[in-house]
Amino acid sequence: MEQNTTSMPLTSDLPIKKQTVCIFGTGDFGRSLGQKMMQCGYSIVFGSRNPQNSKMIPQGATVLSHVEAAETSDIIIVAINRLYYDFLERLKETLHGKVLVDISNNPKMNQYPEANAEYLARLLPESKVVKAFNTVSAWALQSGALDASRQVFVCGNDSKSKERVMDIVRSLGLTPLDKGSLLAAKEIEDYPLQLFPMWKYSIYMSLGLSIVLFIYCIIREVVYNSVVNNKDYSFFIIIRIPNRICPVVALILLALVYLPGIFAAVLQLYRGTKYRRFPDWLDKWMLCRKQLGLVALAYAFVHVLYTLVIPLRYYVTWKRNSYVLQQAFNNKTDPFDTVNGWISDSYLAMGILGFSLFVLLGITSLPSVSNSVNWREFRFVQSYLGYLTLVLCTAHTLLYGGKRFLLASYPWGLPAVYIFSLIIPCIVLVMKFILIFPCLDRPLTAIRQGWERKPKDLYEPHSNLGKSSV
Amino acid sequence: MEQNTTSMPLTSDLPIKKQTVCIFGTGDFGRSLGQKMMQCGYSIVFGSRNPQNSKMIPQGATVLSHVEAAETSDIIIVAINRLYYDFLERLKETLHGKVLVDISNNPKMNQYPEANAEYLARLLPESKVVKAFNTVSAWALQSGALDASRQVFVCGNDSKSKERVMDIVRSLGLTPLDKGSLLAAKEIEDYPLQLFPMWKYSIYMSLGLSIVLFIYCIIREVVYNSVVNNKDYSFFIIIRIPNRICPVVALILLALVYLPGIFAAVLQLYRGTKYRRFPDWLDKWMLCRKQLGLVALAYAFVHVLYTLVIPLRYYVTWKRNSYVLQQAFNNKTDPFDTVNGWISDSYLAMGILGFSLFVLLGITSLPSVSNSVNWREFRFVQSYLGYLTLVLCTAHTLLYGGKRFLLASYPWGLPAVYIFSLIIPCIVLVMKFILIFPCLDRPLTAIRQGWERKPKDLYEPHSNLGKSSV
Amino acid sequence: MEQNTTSMPLTSDLPIKKQTVCIFGTGDFGRSLGQKMMQCGYSIVFGSRNPQNSKMIPQGATVLSHVEAAETSDIIIVAINRLYYDFLERLKETLHGKVLVDISNNPKMNQYPEANAEYLARLLPESKVVKAFNTVSAWALQSGALDASRQVFVCGNDSKSKERVMDIVRSLGLTPLDKGSLLAAKEIEDYPLQLFPMWKYSIYMSLGLSIVLFIYCIIREVVYNSVVNNKDYSFFIIIRIPNRICPVVALILLALVYLPGIFAAVLQLYRGTKYRRFPDWLDKWMLCRKQLGLVALAYAFVHVLYTLVIPLRYYVTWKRNSYVLQQAFNNKTDPFDTVNGWISDSYLAMGILGFSLFVLLGITSLPSVSNSVNWREFRFVQSYLGYLTLVLCTAHTLLYGGKRFLLASYPWGLPAVYIFSLIIPCIVLVMKFILIFPCLDRPLTAIRQGWERKPKDLYEPHSNLGKSSV
Repeated sequence: MEQNTTSMPLTSDLPIKKQTVCIFGTGDFGRSLGQKMMQCGYSIVFGSRNPQNSKMIPQGATVLSHVEAAETSDIIIVAINRLYYDFLERLKETLHGKVLVDISNNPKMNQYPEANAEYLARLLPESKVVKAFNTVSAWALQSGALDASRQVFVCGNDSKSKERVMDIVRSLGLTPLDKGSLLAAKEIEDYPLQLFPMWKYSIYMSLGLSIVLFIYCIIREVVYNSVVNNKDYSFFIIIRIPNRICPVVALILLALVYLPGIFAAVLQLYRGTKYRRFPDWLDKWMLCRKQLGLVALAYAFVHVLYTLVIPLRYYVTWKRNSYVLQQAFNNKTDPFDTVNGWISDSYLAMGILGFSLFVLLGITSLPSVSNSVNWREFRFVQSYLGYLTLVLCTAHTLLYGGKRFLLASYPWGLPAVYIFSLIIPCIVLVMKFILIFPCLDRPLTAIRQGWERKPKDLYEPHSNLGKSSV
Repeated sequence: MEQNTTSMPLTSDLPIKKQTVCIFGTGDFGRSLGQKMMQCGYSIVFGSRNPQNSKMIPQGATVLSHVEAAETSDIIIVAINRLYYDFLERLKETLHGKVLVDISNNPKMNQYPEANAEYLARLLPESKVVKAFNTVSAWALQSGALDASRQVFVCGNDSKSKERVMDIVRSLGLTPLDKGSLLAAKEIEDYPLQLFPMWKYSIYMSLGLSIVLFIYCIIREVVYNSVVNNKDYSFFIIIRIPNRICPVVALILLALVYLPGIFAAVLQLYRGTKYRRFPDWLDKWMLCRKQLGLVALAYAFVHVLYTLVIPLRYYVTWKRNSYVLQQAFNNKTDPFDTVNGWISDSYLAMGILGFSLFVLLGITSLPSVSNSVNWREFRFVQSYLGYLTLVLCTAHTLLYGGKRFLLASYPWGLPAVYIFSLIIPCIVLVMKFILIFPCLDRPLTAIRQGWERKPKDLYEPHSNLGKSSV
Repeated sequence: MEQNTTSMPLTSDLPIKKQTVCIFGTGDFGRSLGQKMMQCGYSIVFGSRNPQNSKMIPQGATVLSHVEAAETSDIIIVAINRLYYDFLERLKETLHGKVLVDISNNPKMNQYPEANAEYLARLLPESKVVKAFNTVSAWALQSGALDASRQVFVCGNDSKSKERVMDIVRSLGLTPLDKGSLLAAKEIEDYPLQLFPMWKYSIYMSLGLSIVLFIYCIIREVVYNSVVNNKDYSFFIIIRIPNRICPVVALILLALVYLPGIFAAVLQLYRGTKYRRFPDWLDKWMLCRKQLGLVALAYAFVHVLYTLVIPLRYYVTWKRNSYVLQQAFNNKTDPFDTVNGWISDSYLAMGILGFSLFVLLGITSLPSVSNSVNWREFRFVQSYLGYLTLVLCTAHTLLYGGKRFLLASYPWGLPAVYIFSLIIPCIVLVMKFILIFPCLDRPLTAIRQGWERKPKDLYEPHSNLGKSSV
């Protein structure tokens, strides 16, 4: 938020020293960038094939031919399509030694084998190509509505040129981020095309699970009651059934966060080394654990809210009132059942503690928090507290079942959904419990510290770095 | 948090290599900084007009005249008031080529047309002026209580000097942040004087709305019942009335987040171009949308808590008990009303889902999260999920009304407040719905990609950058 | 999250330009780093004492003797234990002018008086030593599971060498963080060994308090009822007693956040200067205020959840039903008590507002948020809003008591726990109230701006920097 403001006085006070920057191309982004730069005190010269007919350029800017424009400035922003880069080869002489800022993107990822900026650097080896600005939106530059990231990724092989471009970025009120040499250009060009690539698996999986369980619950609770008992419980689909599904999906996803770690441990024990790559599916699974966990947290959050509004629901208060009235009419009071008191309180308490720890895990996965803890602390939170969360949430579900196991009715033989949610967590917890035994834990720790099972001649005396390599 | 700790071993181990730094001026900040630097292993020489009488300097530091002090070090921290800078002109010779660190602030924003550091650089063109340390508080340096930002903004025209000052910043356990050339000095000097400038509009607006609605509700519920029904419902002002106001303010503010976008679209369609500036009020409005949204989230959060404690309130339990007892005494049970079950559950579910999405929007507006998503992802969350939130919250309010529309009583002809909250959201949603139609959406998209309605001669072949410029 | 993805295309596209890097030592971290670097396009030469017998090196890498290996590259990663560093002295000639990257850690903090990297630099003064990579885990490099921090702290005296190492860091998909000269090596080497050092006091204190209060409550509520009333209330230990303890601990911790500030003010007033250090315990206390506050928030969060599930508990619903049934059987309705309505609503409202502000304080202490506010804004939130939170939470507890003060029974003469929680907050608030009086506030403000009580000759005309030094 402060960035918005801090950039405002800047823009109004800059026009003291006028630096001339040349922009090749009068397309949308070129014009937007030019206008923004003029507002920040630069004088802009556009280079165009047809300087006479380029009427759309921002007021106050000059339009010249490409050669003339290039001669006015040391820095040339190349705002033209990659397809026309070869045309720049003809200006080789003029562009010799100058800083070329490549701001282009491609419509698709991996469209060309080579990044646009690398291609430009290959065409004009005597110029200093810097990649920048491609992650900024023209619309955002125009409207000033830079609510999103103000980070501008910059890369280039010549550090002086990079520094100059980063100064321009800063003077526009944006934050430059040095990404190293031109080798990073490919990555920078693909960046703005992404749409949550790491989240897809987790979101699809949770949605799929939700839909399947939703249909199952409708059959078991709505259709069954409608067909067999002739009761209309269709309004269950709004809160009661979602509130059965959310905790189930949350618990399954949480268990799936820890399952790949179990697989990895088993695989390493079996192979006797950590220096062989995991199968591809396991690698991918391990990389999206954070996303799985956060989606699980979202489901748990909705579950908590759904549960807390229970006493506000008309159906629930009506049912409670009927229950009291029935006792009043029958002139008797149901006695207090201590076991019920224990179970009811325990399952709520497990749920509360599990959810609180889960929220803590979620907070530590915020980028700024996880950046401020070291590896050991991160492991402590995500591994120890994570398993504690899983234990608490599984216990919560088991105790919830505890209340119902005996009086369970299986409409059409269908068990309640919460039973499904217990399968994977129990497998994970049992496996983890087994892996904790010293006979398995000791070799696993050794493997993870670099030991390999097949004996080899190791004369290297200085191989132990005293590094906690878990 | 880790920063606190990591800086502690540092301070105790540094005094190995002693570097001498000179500080001009023995005012509060000069002394505090000097003391801190001495603790971190620097040796400090103060420059003073009256070295004999300067008894307040920290123990271990030397005090000399300005000229003598300046000769002891390459780096001179100028801890004197801007008003006395002209006096430094006399030391021109001595300060030639040295690094001058300007750490001054002004009591008011924009007090001088020129930043203090720029003024200093103009007075002493042969010295290398670096702006730094002005955002740090003397009190914080003194007490070690640097809970707040450890970032020190640094700017200067000479990058070597800047690097040296940044090394000093680092050695004090602070984090230097390169803000570019001296042109940024103005901004850096204004920074510590701000007090949430972007939040003012949103907070004043929400407070104003709250007060007006509060008075309205008191008249409608407390005064009316007291005058007409002779009932004392004054305790409604604590929970019941705030819990009517909070959701209303939250929904109105949320709608105000999306209203300027609608205005902007209409304006662009009308003008046929995006290259003309918006009116000033619209610009400002668009810049404080994030703050509006976050204030709305705070109101929604309080509303959620107020709602969830409803079953704990003495008044509510008393009323429920009376209702049950009345049925018991009359020996009849109110039958279950399926429609009521539907409406009650739906409005709760809409509220829960709306609030959950709202929390998600709030999380993505945390600086570290919004910095780690690209423009496309940010748009997806803030625009699509944002509108979904608005739809859910509006539906929540409509369904809440649905329960009461028929049995509504208008005390003194005053409608319930929730009806007011629906006006702006409904306008926004209807307008957005209209703008989605292809006949409007297509030209709008074209305009936002740089197309202008008035036909012009466009021979520029390379104007399309393949950039998603929305 | 985006970092995960952005690094992935990078690794696959790099092998265009092969740079050779030499790694001394074939221990776990050396091999892991070597393998990762090879995946990112480097060619790796290992230096080993026994090149013939080093069979564990990653496929594709070369193993040579130390001297031969060192000659292949300008950059040598020293992945050997500090104990064997002296052996490198023999290679002085070969390593002359080369970049040595020290990646070592020690098993314990402060094991050696000198950082490993400084020791290496002393042994080989003609080489350019850069400290890096020691905060990264070998296991993380291996498995690609870099969920935690991707920050690599880098320090070194030669900025060119540092820049080269930072480029390598970047090309591995990690984020280099320049920590300045080799003086920072000690700090960087201790960093990965920490386990929440700042949190220990707060967590131990809160756990100790919780246990003591838990035992007290068990005696007062469970044992007393079991012995005197012969009732089994043992299930109270699950929700009811924790829900008494959580708010008490939260309120005490919150008050402890503000108590050291009071002590500091009193001390400064007494001493008449701010330029003398606080006693050590006060310094430490002030440094862990943030942690105290966040632990308090965690307790408050659990308290809120425990409170909100009250209406869902079997015991509570059973008790409410019994109460209603008793009225039904006696054929009378308890009348509504307005005072009770006021107190019940007030204490809930105070709690809600206090908790909401507390959450706001928690959010502003997230690193990315506190980095984006200036000192003045941080003070405003943490001091003004913090005290407001304390006032609200204390009022919440007082009002909670208000309902019970008169009808209080003291089983075995033991007062309720909430009474204990009021002591420290009331002391803090009374002291703060006293310190606000002008006769104390004015000298305190002066002292904090650098004024000292003992009159001194102050001829320094430029001592006022116009800096808000509070």
